[in-house]
Amino acid sequence: MPITTTSSSTKKLLFRQLFEKDSSTYTYLLADVSHPQKPALLIDPVDKTVDRDLSLIKELGLKLIYAMNTHVHADHVTGTGLIKSKVSGVKSIISKASGSKADLLIEPGDKVSFGDLFLEVRATPGHTLGCVTYVTGDGPDQPQPRMAFTGDTLLIRGCGRTDFQGGSSQQLYNSVHSQIFTLPKDTFIYPAHDYRGFTVSTVGEEMLYNPRLTKDEETFEGIMKNLNLSYPKMMDVAVPANMVCGLQDPISKA
Amino acid sequence: MPITTTSSSTKKLLFRQLFEKDSSTYTYLLADVSHPQKPALLIDPVDKTVDRDLSLIKELGLKLIYAMNTHVHADHVTGTGLIKSKVSGVKSIISKASGSKADLLIEPGDKVSFGDLFLEVRATPGHTLGCVTYVTGDGPDQPQPRMAFTGDTLLIRGCGRTDFQGGSSQQLYNSVHSQIFTLPKDTFIYPAHDYRGFTVSTVGEEMLYNPRLTKDEETFEGIMKNLNLSYPKMMDVAVPANMVCGLQDPISKA
Ligand SMILES: [Fe+2]
Ligand SMILES: [Fe+2]
Repeated sequence: MPITTTSSSTKKLLFRQLFEKDSSTYTYLLADVSHPQKPALLIDPVDKTVDRDLSLIKELGLKLIYAMNTHVHADHVTGTGLIKSKVSGVKSIISKASGSKADLLIEPGDKVSFGDLFLEVRATPGHTLGCVTYVTGDGPDQPQPRMAFTGDTLLIRGCGRTDFQGGSSQQLYNSVHSQIFTLPKDTFIYPAHDYRGFTVSTVGEEMLYNPRLTKDEETFEGIMKNLNLSYPKMMDVAVPANMVCGLQDPISKA
Repeated sequence: MPITTTSSSTKKLLFRQLFEKDSSTYTYLLADVSHPQKPALLIDPVDKTVDRDLSLIKELGLKLIYAMNTHVHADHVTGTGLIKSKVSGVKSIISKASGSKADLLIEPGDKVSFGDLFLEVRATPGHTLGCVTYVTGDGPDQPQPRMAFTGDTLLIRGCGRTDFQGGSSQQLYNSVHSQIFTLPKDTFIYPAHDYRGFTVSTVGEEMLYNPRLTKDEETFEGIMKNLNLSYPKMMDVAVPANMVCGLQDPISKA
């Protein structure tokens, strides 16, 4: 009975999209509000907006259990370390392939559970070597349509750059086509950034209208090679910090 | 069967929140995608982002029928006039109480229908004399939870200023308490602006945590009297333009 499951699962998930203007970053809050503890997680929190996010979580009566990243960001400092210093019991999460420190290093196929809901981990390298896409679970008790948190792998009508951090346009192309465009067409795409004011897209829409990823692989690689992007302002600060949850480890500094 | 109706109605409504960064304005796109023509409307479009909005509407295969405003904005120029000049058959909508020109001048209690879905019009003066809140319909075929497009009347953890354009803190207080806080607590609040990166709230949340509107009326009026806000930069351009759908009428100019 797909109709019934859709509705019951929609009622379980509390979902909030939050925006950080300076870096145009989206942070996502998800919680299972049917579960007595209302366990919650944050995807791609930004250091500057940690207080906003934690105050919202408190007001909503949620218990934050995970602060996770889709990848090592080069344009902002992650809030995961700061969150851990402010809320006890929160665990940071990033992919093992990122080479970063975190409490939990996840791998493709892992599940990140919060209450009765979960996210699947899909490896989507190309923007960075360690990029993952988190996708809400497949199953009658999970949100319908599904939601994919694509980081910078797939943006709305765009994609992340592939010219540093172990990036590869060939890998990004294959990641999107094999790991994201194979999801149901009504799957929502929630990226880590948008610079034009879009908040969401769908797999079906990007398969039809993404100006880069609708091209064949060779054309795509040509596009990515000729972007001529400038060096990211924050990169030399953000990347080393983000390798350790946004907080330089006092021991390794000494 | 509330479970079944929730789901069937969720499937009908296509909903997109769109952001204009300079004025931190949210524009909302709603469409009935179960209807063969996919009739759509835009709430509070901004002149600068009209091309983005129309291109999305085209890609999604929607037929735009209404371009509507919650009120005469003082901080940006509405896109309704520009939209009418670019897409034939679109009608502009604003409240009769605003004193503005538009194709349809709506009044409290009116319904704005698009396909089998509709918005109710609620008078919520206070930020301006002519402010309205558009609320998705009540009924088994309408989206659940309901959604309220509150303009500047109720913002997330805030509210619009009440010191010009026929504003009145007493009226705003009464509008929110009688017309918005009486909606079901799970009703989503979608405001015309947010300056801190929030995208949505609920009636229940604002009833508990709105720092202004949880106060008694006298305290609220004191808060609003002492905001000491500066004169809006865009006001002298935006207000006269917005009285005529954002386009100065060539005849009245001559
Ligand atoms: Fe990135
Ligand atoms: Fe306004």
